[in-house]
Amino acid sequence: MFNNKKRNETELGFGSKNYNQSVRFLNKDGSVNIKRSAGNFFQSFDTFHWLVNLKWTHFLALVLVTYVVANTLFAVIYFCIGVDKFGGLPNLCSFDNFMNLFFFSAQTLTTVGYGHIYPMHSMVSSIAAIESMVGLMGFAIITGILYGRFSKPNAYLQYSNNAVIAPYQDITGFMFRIANKKQNELIEIDCKITIAINNPENKRRDFLGLELERDKINFLPFSWTIVHPINENSPMYGFTEQYLIDNDAEFIISIRAINETFFQTVYSRTSYKSPEIVWQAKFLPLNQVRQKNGSISINLNEIHALQKI
Amino acid sequence: MFNNKKRNETELGFGSKNYNQSVRFLNKDGSVNIKRSAGNFFQSFDTFHWLVNLKWTHFLALVLVTYVVANTLFAVIYFCIGVDKFGGLPNLCSFDNFMNLFFFSAQTLTTVGYGHIYPMHSMVSSIAAIESMVGLMGFAIITGILYGRFSKPNAYLQYSNNAVIAPYQDITGFMFRIANKKQNELIEIDCKITIAINNPENKRRDFLGLELERDKINFLPFSWTIVHPINENSPMYGFTEQYLIDNDAEFIISIRAINETFFQTVYSRTSYKSPEIVWQAKFLPLNQVRQKNGSISINLNEIHALQKI
Amino acid sequence: MFNNKKRNETELGFGSKNYNQSVRFLNKDGSVNIKRSAGNFFQSFDTFHWLVNLKWTHFLALVLVTYVVANTLFAVIYFCIGVDKFGGLPNLCSFDNFMNLFFFSAQTLTTVGYGHIYPMHSMVSSIAAIESMVGLMGFAIITGILYGRFSKPNAYLQYSNNAVIAPYQDITGFMFRIANKKQNELIEIDCKITIAINNPENKRRDFLGLELERDKINFLPFSWTIVHPINENSPMYGFTEQYLIDNDAEFIISIRAINETFFQTVYSRTSYKSPEIVWQAKFLPLNQVRQKNGSISINLNEIHALQKI
Amino acid sequence: MFNNKKRNETELGFGSKNYNQSVRFLNKDGSVNIKRSAGNFFQSFDTFHWLVNLKWTHFLALVLVTYVVANTLFAVIYFCIGVDKFGGLPNLCSFDNFMNLFFFSAQTLTTVGYGHIYPMHSMVSSIAAIESMVGLMGFAIITGILYGRFSKPNAYLQYSNNAVIAPYQDITGFMFRIANKKQNELIEIDCKITIAINNPENKRRDFLGLELERDKINFLPFSWTIVHPINENSPMYGFTEQYLIDNDAEFIISIRAINETFFQTVYSRTSYKSPEIVWQAKFLPLNQVRQKNGSISINLNEIHALQKI
Repeated sequence: MFNNKKRNETELGFGSKNYNQSVRFLNKDGSVNIKRSAGNFFQSFDTFHWLVNLKWTHFLALVLVTYVVANTLFAVIYFCIGVDKFGGLPNLCSFDNFMNLFFFSAQTLTTVGYGHIYPMHSMVSSIAAIESMVGLMGFAIITGILYGRFSKPNAYLQYSNNAVIAPYQDITGFMFRIANKKQNELIEIDCKITIAINNPENKRRDFLGLELERDKINFLPFSWTIVHPINENSPMYGFTEQYLIDNDAEFIISIRAINETFFQTVYSRTSYKSPEIVWQAKFLPLNQVRQKNGSISINLNEIHALQKI
Repeated sequence: MFNNKKRNETELGFGSKNYNQSVRFLNKDGSVNIKRSAGNFFQSFDTFHWLVNLKWTHFLALVLVTYVVANTLFAVIYFCIGVDKFGGLPNLCSFDNFMNLFFFSAQTLTTVGYGHIYPMHSMVSSIAAIESMVGLMGFAIITGILYGRFSKPNAYLQYSNNAVIAPYQDITGFMFRIANKKQNELIEIDCKITIAINNPENKRRDFLGLELERDKINFLPFSWTIVHPINENSPMYGFTEQYLIDNDAEFIISIRAINETFFQTVYSRTSYKSPEIVWQAKFLPLNQVRQKNGSISINLNEIHALQKI
Repeated sequence: MFNNKKRNETELGFGSKNYNQSVRFLNKDGSVNIKRSAGNFFQSFDTFHWLVNLKWTHFLALVLVTYVVANTLFAVIYFCIGVDKFGGLPNLCSFDNFMNLFFFSAQTLTTVGYGHIYPMHSMVSSIAAIESMVGLMGFAIITGILYGRFSKPNAYLQYSNNAVIAPYQDITGFMFRIANKKQNELIEIDCKITIAINNPENKRRDFLGLELERDKINFLPFSWTIVHPINENSPMYGFTEQYLIDNDAEFIISIRAINETFFQTVYSRTSYKSPEIVWQAKFLPLNQVRQKNGSISINLNEIHALQKI
Repeated sequence: MFNNKKRNETELGFGSKNYNQSVRFLNKDGSVNIKRSAGNFFQSFDTFHWLVNLKWTHFLALVLVTYVVANTLFAVIYFCIGVDKFGGLPNLCSFDNFMNLFFFSAQTLTTVGYGHIYPMHSMVSSIAAIESMVGLMGFAIITGILYGRFSKPNAYLQYSNNAVIAPYQDITGFMFRIANKKQNELIEIDCKITIAINNPENKRRDFLGLELERDKINFLPFSWTIVHPINENSPMYGFTEQYLIDNDAEFIISIRAINETFFQTVYSRTSYKSPEIVWQAKFLPLNQVRQKNGSISINLNEIHALQKI
């Protein structure tokens, strides 16, 4: 058994520290559960990455807030310079006129420029010239971010909620299922599984690669059941349910595929911890219904369906 | 023969279900003939993918309709707030004035802003400020989608209408032809063929890889005839025309290449079913005409030309 | 010798037709010297590819011409509807007023919209609403094409004007030099050489791969001399200068590298025909001058320098 | 020892010239320390590459300066044509009116177009029509460059300030550490080390590849210590500190990874010269703190920490 482990050892980069407490290296959504900090926050912050991954609602709220704040700022500047420097406005220092300058600012920032309010002094004209350029730059930036958000390649994979350890053909296997959540196709899909587990012998955390019955398929039209056969070549050979729990096992799943929209290589990850593994169960097959027009349809909600054996 | 099959078995991901009825996994245009559904339509819908793959006429119609709908919507809001809140308009609740507000909306959305009609009230100015920002965001989105449509990598391959099974050198071969429909070059082209066929022995559908005489070329200036030699190593050895029909054979073709415009890797697929296979015929060679300036010209319409033997 | 040829035979995709006349498959700039035509010109025309590869002067001229033509077109429409439908214009059917409408069109298309001329009728307002949207779409398209032109990955390689066949170490070699014309770096450069030559034995055109002394380097800071040693393993072994001329030899060079600006894989090609090959000469080494600040400088103009032996 | 060197020799492309003076091929930031010149500066200048790699402050200053220069230029043209050709301006040739034309130009270039100043003559209208198009083209270009700057893939790697040569397990090793400076993940990281060193035997500069204990990891959540074991298979076997100094050794580090934001392959480089190598020291382990929520945190500032042995 020791030899097997040695042979299967892989280096994920998580180190071999044994934490004496349960740890999870990968969250269910595949993000790495480790925080890197440095003295300077801005050095480690990647603005474009953050803006591209922000939720749509948050992104739109951010754009709106920035728009209002920028207009308020410019309105204050215009107001300080003086309402009398503008044509089309009554010469009054009222709140109404501040609002008029706020809307003048909005008309300048978006380059609408109706012109019923207009600058009548070099100082004001200069600020307006800067503001309209700031507006164009800002919308150039938004265009870039929006395109980044749109074109960001993704593997929208649905993983089965549970993995299964159960008899498989003559022996036992570790299994889970994936399917493509989206209508566009994923092709050339391949998969790697690594088990992270504390080693009671040397008090370190081992990372052991698990060989798959089949590690690549060409299309993913239905679901794909990925199987690691637990035979005498498997580093998991002889592990019991209790052993996995006691040694804080984590199955780390890495999947690579090509997204056909732009033929980009995409990666997806998840992990299964002991409570998410069901022993002695099997996945129910998905219904493949042949339609009258010759195409075949399936329902992806069935991907989680299990049956105890 | 069974051994051959075993050795050539490939996993496309279509499963091994035998449908007892004729099925086609790949449509002629290479799209996968399988529909995935889930409870929630929006979860499985990929908006950017859809917009990028929409026909040009449909895309332009969609932009136009969205533009008219948005303007109508804003015009209704302006009209509800009141025509008297606008400068440059007669104070009348007429249809003419509604149209004026519709055009004011269009001038705001596109940021033209002539200014002969202009907002005279904070409420109206606020809506107009929002509308002009919506307009800029909308055109930022359109810019992104247009760039996505332009830069989407593609292999515009012309497949011969028919495949051929016919004597080839000393033995028999399965053959078809491809050519590049566009003027820009494809390089590093490679090809894989898999036959999907019902297996009468075990009532399952087999997927068998077919070895090619040559599976890669560096350029595709002319047409390329792709040949699977049906010798004793072929899983098709001994198959007759009737056997292919009876067992619902489908030849699944996958081609990968690099499109030289942006040096992007592109994929193309098609499939041939029994009615599209001609037995005992040969492809006629394309005329290669050497021009006076030293270049060579061909006519791609000749790619489908067959001659019965 | 025949065995060597067989072993080195490669498939470029140019076919094996012997033209009995001198042909050149690759132009000096690496473009493929073959014209594909089909019945329909538009089917084989790739607009984005064309616009992205157009010369800058031609591209800017095209934009300008399109701008003038579009404005003229809209001006004609406005003029037909009637000058009296516009505010800010004298009610005259003069050429001056046509020009005014032309400039009104320009102000609408670019969304400047000064507003000293403005639409006063629904018909005119509708056309202006369409024109401003056409303008925004047009500039969205131009933005996309400009970004495509900017971000198009390229290997700006300088090939030596001549290749050389000359003694090399103990034997003879076929050699040429390349260097990076631009300041940004190319990394992971590899090279393939194929010789296309008529075979007098079977009256076909052979394509023979030439093995290189070294087919990959990691950086290209200076020039790189690529050498095919003509020893007994070479398919060129025994070929004389006259044999290459008589059999219309063409050396086809393919280079692949990674452009560090966006880490994109780029390809470059060229070919050498017999008149471009100098026998019994050697490349002069480039002067590497160590600057005072520790950096090293070279002059790329020296890359073509040859000396007869 | 000679055999070892031969076996490990690699071709980086820096040539084998021995400069008799200390040279550095790679700067600390990974840029190549070699200047290529040609007769024509513009031929070797890559504008997009330059604009995309410019510092943000310089880029914004460049945009601002271009904006002011363009407006001044157009203002001069308008002024020369005549102030009387504009509506909304007093007919005076004063500096105030020049400033008014400057702001009219800004309003045209950004397409704000308030319209309180407007062209009243064909000549002026033509220039304004050209200026508004130039403005749109300019902002299309800025949009492209901004997107290029945002989406440029990068490996923000922190290298340890020093490399270390010290006992490692039973033998001695050459070691340094890397970590990801940013919050987004790098995956599939691999590393290559080459030592460039003068060879006293043949007066040339050798490039020798160093084998790594482990040359690839899957994630980089913490730091990664890269180790070349200096055993009898190492080309460095027997080299002393003085030998490295005397022969001007440079350790050239190349790292490749996938940046998960857009799943792009990125490259990073650095080099260590003799003064940056500490003998007989070890890297202190980074503190891995398990947070209450189960995640693990580290502080990247600890990456440089060394302890003399």
